[in-house]
Amino acid sequence: MAKAPVLTPQADDFPRWYQDLINKAELADNGPVRGTMVIRPYGYGLWERMQQDMDARIKAVGVQNAYFPLFIPQSYLTKEAEHVEGFAPELAVVTHAGGKDLEEPIVVRPTSETIINEYFSKWVQSYRDLPLLINQWANVVRWELRPRLFLRTTEFLWQEGHTAHATQADAQAFASRIQRDVYADFMENVLAMDVVLGRKTVKERFAGAINTLTLEGMMGDGKALQLGTSHELGQNFAKAFQTQYLSKDGAQEHVWQTSWGSTTRMIGALVMMHGDDNGLRVPPRLAHVQVVVLAIKDDEAVVAKVREIGEKLTAAGLRVVVDDRTDTPFGRRAVDWELKGVPLRVEVGPRDLEGGTAMLARRIPGGKEPVALDILDTLLPKVLEEDQARLLQESRERRLARTVEVSTIEEAAEAAATGWARIPWADLGPEGEAKLAEQGVSVRCLVAEDGSVPTADDAPGTVAIVARAY
Amino acid sequence: MAKAPVLTPQADDFPRWYQDLINKAELADNGPVRGTMVIRPYGYGLWERMQQDMDARIKAVGVQNAYFPLFIPQSYLTKEAEHVEGFAPELAVVTHAGGKDLEEPIVVRPTSETIINEYFSKWVQSYRDLPLLINQWANVVRWELRPRLFLRTTEFLWQEGHTAHATQADAQAFASRIQRDVYADFMENVLAMDVVLGRKTVKERFAGAINTLTLEGMMGDGKALQLGTSHELGQNFAKAFQTQYLSKDGAQEHVWQTSWGSTTRMIGALVMMHGDDNGLRVPPRLAHVQVVVLAIKDDEAVVAKVREIGEKLTAAGLRVVVDDRTDTPFGRRAVDWELKGVPLRVEVGPRDLEGGTAMLARRIPGGKEPVALDILDTLLPKVLEEDQARLLQESRERRLARTVEVSTIEEAAEAAATGWARIPWADLGPEGEAKLAEQGVSVRCLVAEDGSVPTADDAPGTVAIVARAY
Repeated sequence: MAKAPVLTPQADDFPRWYQDLINKAELADNGPVRGTMVIRPYGYGLWERMQQDMDARIKAVGVQNAYFPLFIPQSYLTKEAEHVEGFAPELAVVTHAGGKDLEEPIVVRPTSETIINEYFSKWVQSYRDLPLLINQWANVVRWELRPRLFLRTTEFLWQEGHTAHATQADAQAFASRIQRDVYADFMENVLAMDVVLGRKTVKERFAGAINTLTLEGMMGDGKALQLGTSHELGQNFAKAFQTQYLSKDGAQEHVWQTSWGSTTRMIGALVMMHGDDNGLRVPPRLAHVQVVVLAIKDDEAVVAKVREIGEKLTAAGLRVVVDDRTDTPFGRRAVDWELKGVPLRVEVGPRDLEGGTAMLARRIPGGKEPVALDILDTLLPKVLEEDQARLLQESRERRLARTVEVSTIEEAAEAAATGWARIPWADLGPEGEAKLAEQGVSVRCLVAEDGSVPTADDAPGTVAIVARAY
Repeated sequence: MAKAPVLTPQADDFPRWYQDLINKAELADNGPVRGTMVIRPYGYGLWERMQQDMDARIKAVGVQNAYFPLFIPQSYLTKEAEHVEGFAPELAVVTHAGGKDLEEPIVVRPTSETIINEYFSKWVQSYRDLPLLINQWANVVRWELRPRLFLRTTEFLWQEGHTAHATQADAQAFASRIQRDVYADFMENVLAMDVVLGRKTVKERFAGAINTLTLEGMMGDGKALQLGTSHELGQNFAKAFQTQYLSKDGAQEHVWQTSWGSTTRMIGALVMMHGDDNGLRVPPRLAHVQVVVLAIKDDEAVVAKVREIGEKLTAAGLRVVVDDRTDTPFGRRAVDWELKGVPLRVEVGPRDLEGGTAMLARRIPGGKEPVALDILDTLLPKVLEEDQARLLQESRERRLARTVEVSTIEEAAEAAATGWARIPWADLGPEGEAKLAEQGVSVRCLVAEDGSVPTADDAPGTVAIVARAY
């Protein structure tokens, strides 16, 4: 039976498919102020699971959560020259409050390095206070001219980590640890996303950093998306805010710092990396709904059975929703859960009951088959782990298939029309990077020949990964 | 040994004691923009535990989390007349963004009824979509002229619930359920706080509500603090935003709504309800650090033992910190943990080890006694539950001891100098309420004779609880 597609097919118009999916899977709506968004319960459920999992990883490396104010005096922003230059065009400014014009305008935080350094400079006195490892979960505002839900929004939710260390080596090691042990580990093992770990070029660095480490993912259309960054700030903010400590030798030293962030953009990445023409596909380890048990029709035995199965699967440790809303047609409900990307559907009708089976629909590989009811609770956890692995493998295979080795700028630009290009950084350099930028193509990151993260831009054998990006 | 007090004694100057404690227990600092605050890791740890516990209770009554934008078009605020009148003086306004002056000023949310109704009016179509039960964890901004950390801050963190129902009876029942099953249950059983559940007078109602339910607590100095509110909004916002549904009978009806909130103010309440001259006392069920195991001095066997005890207690399900920072004097560390209100300290020195014991210091009742090491893991969970109950009992006894029955306005005002007064609402009324207000005394809530929450202001036997308040 041919049916009208629920979403614009990816191949017809990828950006429109994305917008359709966000809307129809009820992930988010556009907010009334340009570029803002309303994250709907199903979308927010994904974010809550991301937060929980990431928060545990952040705490496991010794970081404590805190909360710094939304409002930053404008004068703070100007203390670090590159930082203010980078952020000035994106700021939202409060000029009026409590019924009066303010003497000094207030900036709504675009990021918190400045205000956090103001407090670090009070809290850090001696080497005993280091390392100081702080994270906050917060909203930030950066005025967006070309907003797109989850990917570029005027307000977004994120975590921002800020640390101070006694030595540059410690700061460098910590920034790498966040990139690898927190972000990459989470993205690969929970989000089932293939990511490339690299180092940003000088042009692409965070405003005020001496080094930016990045994680880049390839989306379903071959474009790149930056999924998280971890910066070495050197002593730039420490000098601007006099964040100093008394060393063991009795000398006053500026601290060495890092900052690092990951955002609700990860939800957009989830859609663009794992989605297909039928909707989202949520990795089982992330999913707040792993299994939906559907009553096909309004039959007393069927409804009793789906509730029983729901309890049994919940007891087996799965995250389960029972859908017995039989006043809505089964077909519509099935399409809706498919759109939302719930990994497994257990569908139960009167005929299934007779045979002691249910239909198991697997969203990730696709397909349906009957399964005996009495093995569901032992089978499903295994199926979920299989499908988790499959998603990661698919995304890795896509990147490998769509990445080409090139040696000229022209070839790199051409390859970026459909995927990624790898080109020796020695053959490209900042000049080649500038030429590519004119064509909307950027260096996503630099990697070492063996795939590791280079510790300098000019290390021999460094390769640039070049792509169009969201 | 007489020692200088770490904090200003409560009896000397309660507000200064409060400020000292917040500062020295490292709960929060003042932010650079007037009235804002930095919540430090130890204070934020309390908030995280509050969030976790409350979030589970909110979900248990069927509510889903979502996220609405920080920025609200100014025009939204003006749609509900009482609402804008109530909030206009407290608004922070963004007039400039992305390098340009804005055509329409943007308000930084003081609360989200307006923007949420804009979306409810899109999402709600039929009676099948009701009840719609949404909550968000967010920051809000209300410009404060007389800020005080945690109690009144320009920016604070909170949860705000927003629900839409088909009937007034449903909305009323839900607002009560939040007051009782979510807020009161959490405050009594986790925060160990005695609270009085009542109904606000017309004068004290939320701007735009038809009824405000409240939870009031008595602080250590006899003043009252509003700890949470749950509002029936009637159809006020529904009419302003055209939030309508198609009923089973095929008619277009406006929804009936509730909203309800609890904030970081609960941390201030914790301090003022349970704190003493030695610092905070954290209820064990809330505490993110329930037990600290201290090495008294730098002795290899002692340090090994405290780590071993720490592991054993953690394995017993307790939240434990091991303090083996023997380069800081023991006395200073003990005072610091006392200030922070950690319920139990297990102190281990070389002499204790010889006897196979440790000193157990109980923060809540006070006092120290030796305890055999091998019973710690079975004893401590019981001690913690005992101390949890004791804190609640203390706060209840304080309220009962400091509440008097009066029958005139003069007596009520006098009683409010040291505690609470109960006066028949029929004897006070709105006129008496206005007279008390001139003296800085307010009606905290109305309660029924039997202590239940009245369903109308003029129910016979209604009693007003009158006090000075934070």
